[in-house]
Order: sequence, then structure tokens, then C-alpha cells
Amino acid sequence: MAKAKKTAAKKSSKSTKAPAGKRRGKGGPATTDRITDLAQTVVAQAGKGTDPFVDIPIRALSNVDFNRKTRYIEMGDKSQRRNFFNFGQAKRFMQTMLVASKCKDNIERNKTSSIRGIFYQAKHSIKGTKEKTFDTQEECDPVLEDLEVALDSLREELHVYASSRGAMIGELTFVDSGDTIDATRLGSGGYAIPSIVEPSVIQFKKCNAKFVLHVEKDTVWRRFVEDRFWEKHKCILTHGNGQPPRGVRRLLHRMHNELKLPVMVLMDNDPWGYYIYSVIKQGSINLAFESGRMAVPDAKFIGVSSFDYERFGLSDDVKIDLDSNDIKRAKQIMEYPWFAGKKEWEKEIRKMAKNGFKMEVEAMASKHLSFVTEEYTPAKLKDKKSWLD
Amino acid sequence: MAKAKKTAAKKSSKSTKAPAGKRRGKGGPATTDRITDLAQTVVAQAGKGTDPFVDIPIRALSNVDFNRKTRYIEMGDKSQRRNFFNFGQAKRFMQTMLVASKCKDNIERNKTSSIRGIFYQAKHSIKGTKEKTFDTQEECDPVLEDLEVALDSLREELHVYASSRGAMIGELTFVDSGDTIDATRLGSGGYAIPSIVEPSVIQFKKCNAKFVLHVEKDTVWRRFVEDRFWEKHKCILTHGNGQPPRGVRRLLHRMHNELKLPVMVLMDNDPWGYYIYSVIKQGSINLAFESGRMAVPDAKFIGVSSFDYERFGLSDDVKIDLDSNDIKRAKQIMEYPWFAGKKEWEKEIRKMAKNGFKMEVEAMASKHLSFVTEEYTPAKLKDKKSWLD
Repeated sequence: MAKAKKTAAKKSSKSTKAPAGKRRGKGGPATTDRITDLAQTVVAQAGKGTDPFVDIPIRALSNVDFNRKTRYIEMGDKSQRRNFFNFGQAKRFMQTMLVASKCKDNIERNKTSSIRGIFYQAKHSIKGTKEKTFDTQEECDPVLEDLEVALDSLREELHVYASSRGAMIGELTFVDSGDTIDATRLGSGGYAIPSIVEPSVIQFKKCNAKFVLHVEKDTVWRRFVEDRFWEKHKCILTHGNGQPPRGVRRLLHRMHNELKLPVMVLMDNDPWGYYIYSVIKQGSINLAFESGRMAVPDAKFIGVSSFDYERFGLSDDVKIDLDSNDIKRAKQIMEYPWFAGKKEWEKEIRKMAKNGFKMEVEAMASKHLSFVTEEYTPAKLKDKKSWLD
Repeated sequence: MAKAKKTAAKKSSKSTKAPAGKRRGKGGPATTDRITDLAQTVVAQAGKGTDPFVDIPIRALSNVDFNRKTRYIEMGDKSQRRNFFNFGQAKRFMQTMLVASKCKDNIERNKTSSIRGIFYQAKHSIKGTKEKTFDTQEECDPVLEDLEVALDSLREELHVYASSRGAMIGELTFVDSGDTIDATRLGSGGYAIPSIVEPSVIQFKKCNAKFVLHVEKDTVWRRFVEDRFWEKHKCILTHGNGQPPRGVRRLLHRMHNELKLPVMVLMDNDPWGYYIYSVIKQGSINLAFESGRMAVPDAKFIGVSSFDYERFGLSDDVKIDLDSNDIKRAKQIMEYPWFAGKKEWEKEIRKMAKNGFKMEVEAMASKHLSFVTEEYTPAKLKDKKSWLD
């Protein structure tokens, strides 16, 4: 403890956080060290008889910005001080320390946990009272997010996993937890993308792919797998069952940055498809503090575009009427700073409104079942001018 | 056409369906033959100048029963005649033929399609009118179910896939679409269970497993995978992300019947957990016509049981209060014929009501993170008397 106090004493005048976005470099300390630093700072504050505090970057729209240089949504530098001797903050302060200590335990034991597992690990009655440390999961989740930003650690680095969905097949051989997996030999099922895909778990080995094709739905993915699109076009096929979960986004980010693979995105032609694309590309407002390690600013939207109805001579059978919600959502999307001012996107969204209908990837089956893999997508991949950035 | 008429003429006095449950034997005709038979019967009826019809078994609670001999939910023998020359039935009749023909096309081309793909393949404007063959997916889905029961073919045999979720890892080597997959070497991610797992796609090769452990959630599954439970206990681990989709249920059925593996089920201690278990074991009311090829009547419920709170000395931290919905649902479940009269289940459900709380599998983390894999589940597996049937 003496040592802890000493180390921490040197730091006690500093805030416990570095400015957002400028924090950890590649050679930064390991997550456990950062947890220990946080704890020691608090211990030192207490040792000096001052009110212990931690500074937590603010996770709200007011502290989120689209950075035109990095081209993703970033968290700003505003933070909030959380004091222990404050009636309204003491519980949250205690919870933050408690969750941090459970994460440290798990990291040291080389175990990972779901957020539900962290909740149950940290939940207990406070001695001599009927008060519980946590009553609900909803109390625990923001504390974990606090820690992520305060420690500048990905949730995955805190050994916490989210639920997983999404799969992968294609021209990549990788190692997952010591097992070598050749993603060209996974039958029709494919590799279930886990929630934690950090380099400590997954290492890329041999890559014959020229790009990644990410599709919105598992049913569309299955069409591409059955038609062995990945083999003919030398690519990796992924899906995220709708809005892709963290593991899928992080894997796309890693494949793009480490394997230098372009990420091509194929979504439904509706505001939800635009939105999912924008999350893959720029990150989301809620998880702005993770964009730097999740976003793929170079991702391209290859379809389905509002202009494809005419471009591919589709029939009326593919049309689904826009409802008032779609129109409202399309307007909102056009005002996002990362869409606004992009002429091609403005044209695209305006065309959808003018069409009065939306189109699903699966609607291509109205031509013939494999039209999407044999004609539509190859044509879109070739025609760079049709891509949206 | 002449030949078709002749073949069909012999059958025209017969109903186009055999009694439910007594239909296709193992040596029955292939799915395309059955589609052709259906079509030829209709052609023959038309050729004779009579009103074409098909008989469709009724898919409603009124025609569903729990069979105490087979121990699964079965469809009864009631059927409904659908006539072409009937104002209220003509459209549905036409849709049935149309979907059947699209399925036949796909089977012959060795392609599979999502239900959405079938909808788009079958949707078109009827020549000379503005009338569409289908307006919505909701119109198409029951037609596909009609066909499944009328042809006594699994949806998978009609080459139609559902969305997929769920994963597998463990002591099994199998072939999927020509690729040999060793499920002990799939890292942390595992094999994404596809929607179609018929013997034409998946063949079992080498099995070192002594049983299958099926868990409710992917987050729980991940705990078991990380702790390499499958290796220590020589088993196969599966999950279905909640209510398991068709592919997962069918795979459990096949592993149980072909590999002779006991199927052990680990669910949350709540009415929803009981229900999911009952679907795996006895089938569901909605898909009663598929129970024979989906259900695993010998599946065992190993936990979480209402008695485990005391049995394992759990703390109050695992308790989640029952709400009025839980209590209502528990009462309904107790009245299902497949639960009713089973003393142990009555005790179990009554105990839950008496407890006044429910418990999640993940709550075991309040002891310690791997309590569930190192102590709880091994203890439950050993203690056969604690299993619920």
C-alpha cells in the first residue's frame, strides 16, 4: 500500500484522464496498469485527506463531434468530475471502483465476462445494510462505459464481451485462440464472429482476399455463400444481422487497417441501410469514444442505391412504399454532418424521396435468384462511379 | 402433358394428401416428385372439367394434439379443401401453385432461397391487370406453410431457409457442403449453425462427444467455450440465441437420433426458459407439423431449477422478482398437456411461484465467474435425480 500511495502521490494533482482522442498511444500501458493507476490516484487523494474524485469524459451529444480530418465521430474533451463526498455521486463513485476491480480480476485470471456477468459479480449487499451495490443492469451499463472512456480502454480490453451475431466466410486464414481456421473451408455455416476479436485472440495469417464485402442480413449473406461469391471474386464475406455488433465492426476495422482490404458495404435501399452504413464508416454517437478503433472511414456504399431501379431495369415488383417514418428518418440522415455537404449522398437520398419507394437487396430475386451475385454486385463493384463515399 | 394427365388421372379421385403423421415413410418420393404429383393432380382435375382443388391440413390449435406415445406435439387429420372455382379461395390456390413452382425451380437448380427470396421470385403483376400475385410477405408465409404440410416436406426440403442464429463447438467432426469441419478447432467463435442442416448438406463423421449441452444464450455459451467445458466433459456445446431457430432444432434432433447423444438443456429459471425447453423437447403448436423431424422428446432439463437456490446455497444477489406476467405465464405452462400431470414439473413451477423470484444462468457469476462451468453444471450432470423430463 505504501508503494501505491507513493506512486499515486506523484499523480494526485493530475486529472485521472488524458484528453480524449489524444490519449493512449500504441505503446501505452496495459489495461490493468491503467486500472491500478486509477485506483492509486483515488487512494492517494484519500490518504491526503482530500475528497477522492475521478474525471469521466462526458458521453453525450454535447461532447460529440464529427472530425473532418479523421472522418469519424469523435468524443470531445469535456469531462465531469465525480466526487466521493457528494451525496448524489457517492454511489456511482463506489460502483465505478467496484466494476473496475472486477474487470481487473478477470483480466488477471485471463477470463472474459458478459456485461451481465460483471453485474452479478459486482452485485452484493453492503455489510450491515440492506443496500445493494447494484439493483439493475441499467445501473451497471453506464458505469462500464464510464470506465471505458476514463481508462481509454475498449470494452474488449476490459475483458467484457457483448452478445455476438454475424458470420464470416472467405479468402482468409486466421488463428483464433490457438486454432488455425481457414475461412474458405467452413461449409455453408461459416465462422460465428465472436464479440472479442482483439489481436490477443485473433491473428491474421494468410489473406488471398482483395476486399471485404459486408452485407446487412444473414439471409443475403447466405445467397452469396451458396453462390461461392467469395471464391469467384476473391473476397471475404461478412454480415452483422442488421446493425453489426461490436465484434463485427472491430473485425472490419482490423481487416481494413491490418490487411489493407477495402470494405464494400451492401445494404437495403432505405434509411436504415444508410444508417448502418454510416455506423460502420463513421461510428455512432453513443459509442463515439470507440470510433477510432471501430470505424472504417474508407468504407464504400456499393448499394442498393435509389438509382439502381432504373440502372438495372428492375420491375415494379421490387418497390416497397416509403412510409412517413422513412421520410422523416431520411431527412434526419441528410442533416448528419457526415452526410451533409456530400453531393452524391444528397442526390441519393433525394432520389429515394422522389422514387417514393425503398428496395431490399433480396428484391433482386425478382429478376432471378442469383441475379444479385452474378450480375448486380459484380456490376456495382466494377463501376466505381456508382459508389457512395 | 398427356403423360401428366394420365398419371394424374389415376389419382384424381384421391385426396392430394395422406393423413398427417402417417404420411411419408423413409423411402418416400423426393420433394420434386411430390410437387409434380400435386401439380399433375390439379391438371388432371382441370382436364376432366372438374373444379381443381387441393386439400391442406389445418394448421390451428383445433388440429393439434400432444401425442403421449411419440411424446411430441402433432398435427391431427383435419384438412380443408381449397377450390380454384371459389371466389374466396382462387387467389390462395393460385399462390400455392406459384410458390410450389418456384420451389421446384430452386430444387432443380440446386439453389436455396430465403422466404423473402421466394416472395420476390413469385411476385408479379398478372398480365393485363394491375393485380399482383402477392402484395406482402404476410400473404406468402402461410402459403409456404400450406405447401409444407400438403407435401409433407420440411421447409428445408423445399430449399427455403429461415434466418439463422446459434453456434456450435465441441467433440464432433462433420462435413458441411464438402468441407470437413473439426468443431474442436474453431477458436472462440465457433461454427455458425446454418438454417439448412439436412443430410444433403451436413454429414456427421467422427463424434467423440458423450452428450450435447444446449444453452439458452450466446453469452452463456461463450462462458462454456472459454472454459473449454466441451473438452473436459467430452460434449458438443450449442446455443440458439434464445428461442432456437429451425436449423438449431433440426441439428439437435439429428445429433440425438443419428449420433445417439443425450441432449441436455440449460436455461434460465423463468417461464420463458421452461417454454424454450418445451419447444426443443415437444415442438411448438405453430410448427406442430414439423415436430417429428425437429423435436427431441428425450431432452432433459438440467437447470436452472427453482430448487437450485437452496441446493447451491446461492445468495440473494441472484434473485429477480417475478412479475405478474411471469406468474400468468407459469400457470399457462403448467396447463400445457405436456407439462400437466408431470409431478416433478408441477413441483418445479410451484416452487418458482413460492420463491417469488426467477434466476438467470449468468447469476451463477455471483459465486465466481466460472462457478457455472466448474461446479454448478458438473454437479447437475452427475445428479440424475435433479433432471426434469
